[in-house]
Amino acid sequence: MTTQSANSTLDAVKCFAERFSLMLDERATFDAKTPPMLADAIRYSLLAPGKRLRPFLVYECGALCGADEDACFAPAAALEMIHTFSLIHDDLPAMDDDDLRRGRPTNHKVYGEAVAILAGDALVTLAFETLATKTVNREHVASLVVALAHASGDKGMIGGQTLDIEGQKTPADNPPAQSLEAVRQIHSTKTGALFECACRMGGIVANADDDTLERLATFGLNLGLAFQIADDLLDVTASATDLGKKSGKDAKKGKQTFPAVVGIEQSREHAESAVAAAIEAIRGISGDTSRLESLAEFAYRRDR
Amino acid sequence: MTTQSANSTLDAVKCFAERFSLMLDERATFDAKTPPMLADAIRYSLLAPGKRLRPFLVYECGALCGADEDACFAPAAALEMIHTFSLIHDDLPAMDDDDLRRGRPTNHKVYGEAVAILAGDALVTLAFETLATKTVNREHVASLVVALAHASGDKGMIGGQTLDIEGQKTPADNPPAQSLEAVRQIHSTKTGALFECACRMGGIVANADDDTLERLATFGLNLGLAFQIADDLLDVTASATDLGKKSGKDAKKGKQTFPAVVGIEQSREHAESAVAAAIEAIRGISGDTSRLESLAEFAYRRDR
Repeated sequence: MTTQSANSTLDAVKCFAERFSLMLDERATFDAKTPPMLADAIRYSLLAPGKRLRPFLVYECGALCGADEDACFAPAAALEMIHTFSLIHDDLPAMDDDDLRRGRPTNHKVYGEAVAILAGDALVTLAFETLATKTVNREHVASLVVALAHASGDKGMIGGQTLDIEGQKTPADNPPAQSLEAVRQIHSTKTGALFECACRMGGIVANADDDTLERLATFGLNLGLAFQIADDLLDVTASATDLGKKSGKDAKKGKQTFPAVVGIEQSREHAESAVAAAIEAIRGISGDTSRLESLAEFAYRRDR
Repeated sequence: MTTQSANSTLDAVKCFAERFSLMLDERATFDAKTPPMLADAIRYSLLAPGKRLRPFLVYECGALCGADEDACFAPAAALEMIHTFSLIHDDLPAMDDDDLRRGRPTNHKVYGEAVAILAGDALVTLAFETLATKTVNREHVASLVVALAHASGDKGMIGGQTLDIEGQKTPADNPPAQSLEAVRQIHSTKTGALFECACRMGGIVANADDDTLERLATFGLNLGLAFQIADDLLDVTASATDLGKKSGKDAKKGKQTFPAVVGIEQSREHAESAVAAAIEAIRGISGDTSRLESLAEFAYRRDR
């Protein structure tokens, strides 16, 4: 990959993030039936600056398989709602106890713990409501709901967060024997599942065939894995200013991460393998896959 | 209503609760993809003894409008999952901080706060997954998802819980000026919305017409209101042993309840009006509505 194509992909992601945030802002409005405090707490986190990578993947995979742009909004918005819910709940005192997120105070620091829990809860129901009411082709609703529930629930992201939290129960200065398989399992579910779902949903709204859906899913899962490994590496190597959140926290908490288990160099190798697997999967789909390939490279190179 | 018909309705509710709990137990199984601790926490609360009133309403309203029994399971299970999620989260230290629920330690007392939050979260996604995968007629999925999301989310139950929590922020010995309208709003959303949804869903799986759906919804909303007023009255008048949870807690916390705002006698009058409105709505539907009418009477007479 040339630096030029990497930069152009990065520009595309940034442009999309701005555009998508405006769309979310416009459509995530609340009427008098929603308590103003709850609406504020939801909007505070949902409209916070973010990379919008999961929505980007829905649109890119949708476009690759011939979906209309309009068809991508509902699944993209739903995914970002689920992602935002997970950030709010993960930051809670009972979970990761974080004060800072994307450079701003976390939701519970601003609105209190009770409202933060409820705002997270409401984002989950809002995600499914969005799928059911804003999906362009009503015949896609059931498949989209299944994909989202599966990826975000007990078998996916929420399951992964449970494993993550459970893994931290021993004192940080005396971490448990961690296995690579355990870490891979946490990351595949906690991060990989939503990336996989984003790509699959892009295919669903494009009426893609089963083989294509599986290729998109494999691409997304491996991209998510590479992305999470890069995130863990950043936590080790970068400063809080670069991150917009505290760095070095994973190690202090005894979190199970790739760098903690296999070290920095081997973590980079695992990320590279995941990127290679992602690219191999996506190349089996006809059409221009160059931007998705370049995104996979970017996910992993973020820590350089 | 005669005592005999009241008893026979109560028996029917109890029988149903046992049968439905077995069905839930059989179907709410988890495979290796769900972390065992999370599966345990979910099952601990979902399978705890309960009245299963919301599922009962789905089946009763479904039967009234000619639905097959099989068609009622998915919406009934989904509703009970959402209800269970709300109990787990409402009991959290940051919310109502309760140690006892249905006579047993609350979820976070057994599994810790983090896992309790995640078990609640997972029940929401599981509810929507259940609707999308277990609904007999796939054409009903979108309507059921919209109904459930609407009733449980920011405009419904979660919104109501937010108002409830917000209303308790002033010290208990110096409660804020509470209006009847505010209390009605909290109860209509926090409790009424799921009862309304249960009845509506029974109609949806029976392909009921719009007028019938609205009648079912009005019945459910008013039944929920009567039920919640009776619950608040019980908190004032009953002992902890009767309740299976601490009594007199509402007043101590400065909770906005009907008895706190208008006193016991007027609260009973409001409950009676709600029962009357419920019965009037359901009588407009052809078929045998006697058991639903008797259930409405029972909801309100619980505190006697």
